[in-house]
Order: sequence, then structure tokens, then C-alpha cells
Amino acid sequence: MDSRKSNRRGFLKGGAALAGLAAGAAQSAKAQTPEPKWHEKGTNKEIIAYGERSRFVTSLRAPVAERDSPDAFGLMFHVLTPLQDSVGSITPSSLHYVATHRGSFVPEIDPKEHRLMIHGMVDRPLVFTMDELKRFPYVTRVHFLECIGNRSKPTHKTVQETHGMTSCSEWTGVPLSVLLKEAGVQSGASWIVAEGAEEIKGASSIPLGKAMDDCLVCYGQNGEAVRPQQGFPLRLIVPGFEGIFQTKYLRRIKVVDRYYMTYNDYGHINPDPKVSALGNQIGPKSVITYPSGGQKLSGPGFYEISGLAWSGGGAIRKVEISTDGGKSWKDAELRTPPYPMAHTRFGFHWNWDGKECDLQSRCTDELGTVQPTRAQSAQFFNKPLDENYRVPGADNTIQSWRIAGDGSVHNGLA
Amino acid sequence: MDSRKSNRRGFLKGGAALAGLAAGAAQSAKAQTPEPKWHEKGTNKEIIAYGERSRFVTSLRAPVAERDSPDAFGLMFHVLTPLQDSVGSITPSSLHYVATHRGSFVPEIDPKEHRLMIHGMVDRPLVFTMDELKRFPYVTRVHFLECIGNRSKPTHKTVQETHGMTSCSEWTGVPLSVLLKEAGVQSGASWIVAEGAEEIKGASSIPLGKAMDDCLVCYGQNGEAVRPQQGFPLRLIVPGFEGIFQTKYLRRIKVVDRYYMTYNDYGHINPDPKVSALGNQIGPKSVITYPSGGQKLSGPGFYEISGLAWSGGGAIRKVEISTDGGKSWKDAELRTPPYPMAHTRFGFHWNWDGKECDLQSRCTDELGTVQPTRAQSAQFFNKPLDENYRVPGADNTIQSWRIAGDGSVHNGLA
Repeated sequence: MDSRKSNRRGFLKGGAALAGLAAGAAQSAKAQTPEPKWHEKGTNKEIIAYGERSRFVTSLRAPVAERDSPDAFGLMFHVLTPLQDSVGSITPSSLHYVATHRGSFVPEIDPKEHRLMIHGMVDRPLVFTMDELKRFPYVTRVHFLECIGNRSKPTHKTVQETHGMTSCSEWTGVPLSVLLKEAGVQSGASWIVAEGAEEIKGASSIPLGKAMDDCLVCYGQNGEAVRPQQGFPLRLIVPGFEGIFQTKYLRRIKVVDRYYMTYNDYGHINPDPKVSALGNQIGPKSVITYPSGGQKLSGPGFYEISGLAWSGGGAIRKVEISTDGGKSWKDAELRTPPYPMAHTRFGFHWNWDGKECDLQSRCTDELGTVQPTRAQSAQFFNKPLDENYRVPGADNTIQSWRIAGDGSVHNGLA
Repeated sequence: MDSRKSNRRGFLKGGAALAGLAAGAAQSAKAQTPEPKWHEKGTNKEIIAYGERSRFVTSLRAPVAERDSPDAFGLMFHVLTPLQDSVGSITPSSLHYVATHRGSFVPEIDPKEHRLMIHGMVDRPLVFTMDELKRFPYVTRVHFLECIGNRSKPTHKTVQETHGMTSCSEWTGVPLSVLLKEAGVQSGASWIVAEGAEEIKGASSIPLGKAMDDCLVCYGQNGEAVRPQQGFPLRLIVPGFEGIFQTKYLRRIKVVDRYYMTYNDYGHINPDPKVSALGNQIGPKSVITYPSGGQKLSGPGFYEISGLAWSGGGAIRKVEISTDGGKSWKDAELRTPPYPMAHTRFGFHWNWDGKECDLQSRCTDELGTVQPTRAQSAQFFNKPLDENYRVPGADNTIQSWRIAGDGSVHNGLA
């Protein structure tokens, strides 16, 4: 049958053409799926107790080469989520990005030994065991985390390299406000300092207003305990703020009356008030994950553009797609619920004509803030726009992927 | 300080008392979290490429002993999710329940070799490779799966044993309706038969109306590829229907004009029309996961009752809690968004007075259907109500957990 005839039914809104997606007729050789090999794998423990992924699934995290150069302590270490393989909104916990100053060292914390202290300007200093924390009222919320260094080199080849320092989980924990109210915050307090067991990169000052708003003291991630690389047994979640505030191995929260300088303040204390203002909260940001750098389209025809959008300012309200390098824009569909400060999956029906073009996504959050272009960013910061321009703080500018005539996909800035 | 004073602030709606949850003062011995051991674990591949859970987290699936007795093929095999440890709404993929007639055998399917055929009463029989399927428009939806045998023995001790054959994932795939429209369903068709690579338990007849409504041909689960035990590389999701319809290793969909009898029809074809009517779609169901059988409360005081509710009929609208064995009910809070045909986490503030009592949860779905008691079920099916009464089909009756005076938790029916 003529595949065009079927497509003329126009069952997809917008008239997307699916021509060529199912070229094989049922009687062709490819109709037959080979009988799979059935084999009994390993021990009962492996098969029964805890399932694994297929050996054909090879999606893995990767280190950031240039950021692995030794810092003052010789241990800076960043590991990137393979966003090019992502689907939906949740990042598998095993593939969540990691940023640490502990190299590949992971702390082994016995939850029975772990304590959380709340002290400082409180009526009643408190110490909690993990069991005590789990008796408190809890909430479950989907939130992204993102390292401020995400996209620090905008000319990288793949989306894992350009944007892989963000991930999204379903977090479960006690609202920090519940614990602070239990301790009784004293008049005059204005900041908290959250300390984890990482003695460097282990403390951040957070405004008391944010602490009393939506911060969570989390013991759960994606339906199970927080993973060790994510802060087991206890992690602070500061929704929408950059990664360094999301204190891992959380063990103390001190209520204070001023900003405390810590090691974490590299990058935050900045003479430029614009940079400082933009330093804490992640701006509206989006990226196309398919097709993205290093992937290849098999030829002209229908494709489903897929990507992620998120904002520290709240929920994503709109994502637009340009297939002409930003000249014209059309609305994408939001494919997962746009939670506040969460990855939101978007999709867009696209019929590629086989010609070179530039794909871009642009998001708007519930505050009405629109993801900027690099040109707008350079103008805002009053810097010359060239390929070496690096956005101060978190770079949330629009990513462009160039589709070459042969279907190969390249970073538009590379 | 007097902890009661702090509680009198009544910051929790409903006046929940948190007395005793943080007994330790900051200066006490337990204030000090020991310095954790930092150690470099294994190879780069383990640490960088793919994270693992803590060795202190020992939550595991378990087989159903009495269901592991050999069936006609000697391979019946059911593995239970540890719901007692669950948080939030998503089940970690490694802990998703498994029901199969293949024993602990798992098929190893190369996705490059896998095909999906759509044939039968269609204008244009089609065969898709995995790459072709991934070019189609997709959706992401959160849905539970549940084996009809879940709670087949209501006197089990733990919630893993009573209710562990249900799990919930974020599924990503192509709406089956899109593929069927592409093939062109012919006039007179009324059913589809979905076939997987499991030659037994590998085919189910599904009404065409359901197939065109919300069924999904899924390649994604919780942000990554579907796991092998869940049907890698392709699984049919039939939201709200019992597990056996959710065909794993999906390779053929035949459009037909009648119900096809298959091996899967044990349990479905039933002379009692009430049983048959209730056989496909899971009724509104809920269970308290904490506190639940085998757990122990450490003494009187504040606890957060936590549990899961779900329904094949749509979204959960209400969950109620009884702490007096069903005499009186109070509304619980829904702690995760009540998606249609998805696990919804509920929570309830509870101040235990230390006396023996019976905890129950009862849910209502968006159709207004209320989870029944065992007595209502027995009356409906006109059977005597005693401890041996087994609900025909899927047992969605109310679960009761008895809290003994020493804090130990027991199945109310055991």
C-alpha cells in the first residue's frame, strides 16, 4: 500500500506525516522476531531480589574531563547524566549526575549512627536520629537539581557534555519548616547554614525565607533511600537553587543572623550584582535531547523532537521550538506534568525535509521569564558576543543543534 | 525545654503532637554524628558510570512461597515488591514485582532484532523496528501494574506478602491508537490480541475500545529502557487492567472480530458474570504500608501513617483512615498527584495512645467507587464470611493492621 495514503488521514493534529516510519510490510523478512534466548541468570538473589537492566542498554554517565583537573584539594569530580538517552521526567538514580570535591570517594554512613542537629538561634536545639525524622510528616515532590557549572563550555559536542549536570528525582522528606518550627526560630534570625559530612563543599548559607518555604530534608529518592552519591542517608533539597545548596550527608542546620562565608562561596560572592543575583536560582532553561549532538537522523521524514525544560523560578508554562535557528517559533507539547522546579518533558512533531537546519528550544516559566539567547545574555552582561563568550553564573541560554544534510547533528556553537 | 510547650504551638493542622520525636538535646552524646568513612569504591566504571545503593539499604523483593509451587509447566514464579519500605509513588525498577511462567529465566532480546507486527483486520499490516517506533509521537504516563493474585492469601503477615504484587512506574511509549490508526483498523474489528515472546502467558485479548483509548506500547520505564523482567525491549501497558494484560516482550498485535481464548484466560472466563465483570479492571484499592505487619512502633506518640491507593477505574479522589477498626473515618492527605490508574501516596497524622487498635485505609476513585470491606464482598458474592473467605478475582477489600499494646503490628485477619 501507498504509505502516503495512510498519512493523508491526518490523524495527528498539525498534520504530521509519519511516512516512512513503518516501511516494512508484514510479509517481509523483518517481520519475524527471532525467538529470544531464555536463560536462567545468576543466583536467586540477582534475579529474585533485585532486578537489573538489559546488557543491551549501555547508557552510562561520564566524567567531565576538563573539570576533573585537580582543584586546591585535588579532588574535584563531576559526572554527567546521559540526557541523550533520557525519556520522561525522572532520571534513573543510578544515572543521576554527581558533583563533589571528594573524587570518586563515597562516604559509607550507617543510618543508625547518623544524626541531624538543629541549633543556633533556636528556642530548643534538637538532634534527630533517622528513625525520629521518619516519624515526622513528610511530603513527596519532583524536583530537578543542577550544578551551576552545567553548560560551562557551550561548545561541547553532545547534550550529555553540554547539559548533563542536571537530573530530576521524586524526593521524599520532611519539610524543613516543620523541623525549624519544632526547634523554634528566634527573633532576628535571617539565614541558615546547612552542613553536610563533606568537609569541603559541605556547607551553604540559605535565606531563612527559603528555608521556611519549600526546602525538604530528604531520605527518599525515586521510591527508595537516597543513593550514596546523592547524600545517603539525608540530603537537603533547596528547590530551584543551584546544586551546591542541596547539601549531601546533611548533619547540621544552624540558624544564624547573617550570611556565613563558606568554601562553597566561590562563584557566589561576586562584585557584579547581576551575577550575584543570578547565582542562586536557576533560570528557565531547556534543551533538545533528541535529536542532539552526536546523533544521526536516518533520512528525511517524520521525527519526534524531544527535550527537557526546567526553571528555578517555578513551573514551566510554555516551550517553543524553532527549526530555523530562532527565526520562527511554534509551541511544543508538554508531555509530563509541569511541576514547580522540575524537569518537564516536551515533544514536537517535525517533518524533516532533509535540508540543513538549526533546531532550538525556548521555555517560559510561570513567572513569565523567558529563556534568553546568548546574544541577549551578552547584552545583559555588557560583554562582546563571540564563540568564547561564557555566561556568568548558570548558563541558561538557548542551545542550538545543527542538522547537517546527511542527518548528523552538531552543536550549533561548535 | 519542655517539649510540650513547643507542641502547643499547634503548627500542624489537626493539632498533631510531635512529642517525643526529638528527645535528644543538642549537647547529648547522640548529637555527634561520627565522621563517616570515605573510601574509593571499586573501579571507575562502578563509581562514575553507574551508581549503586548503599550497602545499608537492604530492601529486597521476595518470592511468593505458595505460588512457586509448579504449575502445569513447572515454572510459575511471582516476586513481591517490598512495599513496607516504599516512599512516594514510584517503585524503583529493580524492586518492581515480577509475575511470569518462566521461572527465574529472563529472555535476552537484542533490541536491534526485535520487531512489532500489527496485522489481522487492518488495511495495511505493518512491522516496526525499535528505531522506527521511537520516531513516533510518544507520551509519558505514571501507571500501576498489579497481578490479579495480589492478596490471594489475605492472612499473610507483611504488606510485602499481602500486597507486594503491585508496583508503579513512569512509562514512556507510543499510544497504541496511533499505531492502529496508521495500520487502519477495518470495519467489524472488535478485539485485539497482544502477543509477547513468552509462549505461555504471552497473549491476551483486549477490547478494541480499550486499545484505542489509553493503551501504550512502551519502551521506557522510570527514565530509562524497560527492564528485562518488565518486558525489555517493548511492553504493552493497558492502564488499570490486571497484570496479565500488560504483555511483556510485545511482538505482535492482531486485530480481530472476537475474543480469542489463550492460556491467559484461566481466571477470566468464569460462569459467574460478577466475577467475570470484575476480572479485568482493578477495583479501588489501598493499603497502609507504615505501620504494617511485622513492623513495630517504639511507643506511644506521634506517627505518620503512610500508604498507597490506586484504582483501575481512574484517579484516586479520597482516602480515609480508621484507627478504630472501621467504626469512624477521617480523611487522609494525598501526598502525590492522583494520576489516573496510578499509585497515590497518602499520609495521616496519628497520635498513638499506646492502646491496642486496628488501622485501616479506604479509598474512593473518581467514579465514586468505594473500596469494600470483606463483609461487603462476601455479601456481594453471596458467600459465608469467615477467615477462609477468598474474594473472587482481584481482592481489593480493606486491609486491617492490628497494633498491639507493645507496638507490634499484625495482620488483622491473621
